[in-house]
Amino acid sequence: MTPDRPRIVISMGDPGGVGPEVASVAAADPRVKHACDLSIVGDLRVLRRAAGLREVPLDAGVVIDLGLVGEDAHGAGRVDASNGHASFAYVARSLDEVLARNADALVTAPISKAAWHAAGHRYPGHTEYVAERASSGPPAMMLCAGPLRSVLVTGHVPLRDALGRVTAESVLRALGLGGEAVRRLIGADPRIGVAGLNPHAGEGGILGDEDDRVIRPAVDAAVRDGWDASGPHPADALYRRAAAGAFDLVVAMYHDQGLIPVKVFGRGVNVTLGTPIVRTSPDHGTAFDIAGKGVADAESMVLAILMAASLSNSKGA
Amino acid sequence: MTPDRPRIVISMGDPGGVGPEVASVAAADPRVKHACDLSIVGDLRVLRRAAGLREVPLDAGVVIDLGLVGEDAHGAGRVDASNGHASFAYVARSLDEVLARNADALVTAPISKAAWHAAGHRYPGHTEYVAERASSGPPAMMLCAGPLRSVLVTGHVPLRDALGRVTAESVLRALGLGGEAVRRLIGADPRIGVAGLNPHAGEGGILGDEDDRVIRPAVDAAVRDGWDASGPHPADALYRRAAAGAFDLVVAMYHDQGLIPVKVFGRGVNVTLGTPIVRTSPDHGTAFDIAGKGVADAESMVLAILMAASLSNSKGA
Repeated sequence: MTPDRPRIVISMGDPGGVGPEVASVAAADPRVKHACDLSIVGDLRVLRRAAGLREVPLDAGVVIDLGLVGEDAHGAGRVDASNGHASFAYVARSLDEVLARNADALVTAPISKAAWHAAGHRYPGHTEYVAERASSGPPAMMLCAGPLRSVLVTGHVPLRDALGRVTAESVLRALGLGGEAVRRLIGADPRIGVAGLNPHAGEGGILGDEDDRVIRPAVDAAVRDGWDASGPHPADALYRRAAAGAFDLVVAMYHDQGLIPVKVFGRGVNVTLGTPIVRTSPDHGTAFDIAGKGVADAESMVLAILMAASLSNSKGA
Repeated sequence: MTPDRPRIVISMGDPGGVGPEVASVAAADPRVKHACDLSIVGDLRVLRRAAGLREVPLDAGVVIDLGLVGEDAHGAGRVDASNGHASFAYVARSLDEVLARNADALVTAPISKAAWHAAGHRYPGHTEYVAERASSGPPAMMLCAGPLRSVLVTGHVPLRDALGRVTAESVLRALGLGGEAVRRLIGADPRIGVAGLNPHAGEGGILGDEDDRVIRPAVDAAVRDGWDASGPHPADALYRRAAAGAFDLVVAMYHDQGLIPVKVFGRGVNVTLGTPIVRTSPDHGTAFDIAGKGVADAESMVLAILMAASLSNSKGA
């Protein structure tokens, strides 16, 4: 290992999903090899089978083999408690590596929440478990695809509840977390566009008052704090401009507002913000329907690794 | 005129915006000339100046000249009451043409709502005025760009109010109106995906109950009515699949959910449904900042005319 190269640890994900395939394909990708030193926490037998299926070489030296499941677990394509137990253990061990500073960042291949639950691990997902292990405040999600980056003010809550959680404080927090991350990624002050909550950003109050009453003061405060921020903008027009490169970051008020444009634009990467641990993931799930068939697209996984490497490289810079 | 060609009337829009430019450029487009017989309700002097600026020929025979403003009104680039009066009169006269069956469909170039209001015309926009003149029920909006088509269950209302207006009845109505329009456009039964309201379409009730309680019964009823419909799907994943061509129509629960993906995807067309009048429009506004500069992109106007022609051609088929 070269000391100044970022060290990335991948958790292999659910053995029955596409995780082992996309991890082994991504590990063999020249862009990944160039950008970082990699290790994969998982099951060597499963990874060997996945790499064989995809006809890519697997360097057994990078695998931290927990030996928890048989090779027939690969591509099982269904919710399975023992796979849920294993995929939780991969994440836990990966976090050990990051917390012990043996790795700079974590990239998580997809797990099945239902399998975690079947195995008794009652976390809504990776994000909450990472935040718990890192003893951090509430995490925030950032989603990136091409020129589009969305940081979410509210996340996995009913839309009705999200409305009440859009406050000047929560907008400012998401803007700050996203702004700092994007500054690290692009090496410059990001141009930040803040989305409105209501159609046409409330159209002067006719279509809702949150935009002027809550979001605008938060944007003003962000500008006073030195951010290059503007808004609230009508979300549809803002995302059109962002897709054309006019902004480096969009602050989205709720889950679908931020995720829909990223998913339409192209392959995405999910970044967990608000914890001291750098963690990224591809924007797809276990894809049980195509697991083990050798067709899963590894590009989102490659991009997640490259983004983790970028964020590690510039950490604290 | 050839009797079986659709006859389209364009209202010129606000003289101070990009409407006169995009109308004159679109009128000269070979695709438009091939698809329909056109007339433009507006001011001949303004259209002449706009066509001259864009170096396209203007056939004065297609202009229904109301002679309301001077040529210096062109590209004024600001809210002006006399321009608001004029742009309202263009729409009113265009609707006369459609209601008298001198035209099959209306395409509206952008107006300034503020100018309409300054002139005393207190409609929120074209849609509501068209619905009033056509004595129809509440209109519904459909937005289209490339393979993406969104029909909205709720429109220009605060997001908080939209939540309460998502009912089995309103979902079914939007699905039916959108489904019938798309069937006319593609000449086949559309594949309809219905979006969830909450993140992950409620994830089994953990992230909100409207998806299972309200939307699912509406989808089931639509299927019983013979529609090829499915859902509620998580909106982000649904729009990704729709952008890849997996659906012909997405039923969106609220304004931004339906408009963001269309605007990110590309140039869009707005279609008013639920009235007996076929009406389309480009998906941009007056663009006062670039009006009169000769740079406005007319492609969305061209697409709006072509869609109006398609919908007229197949009317009742």
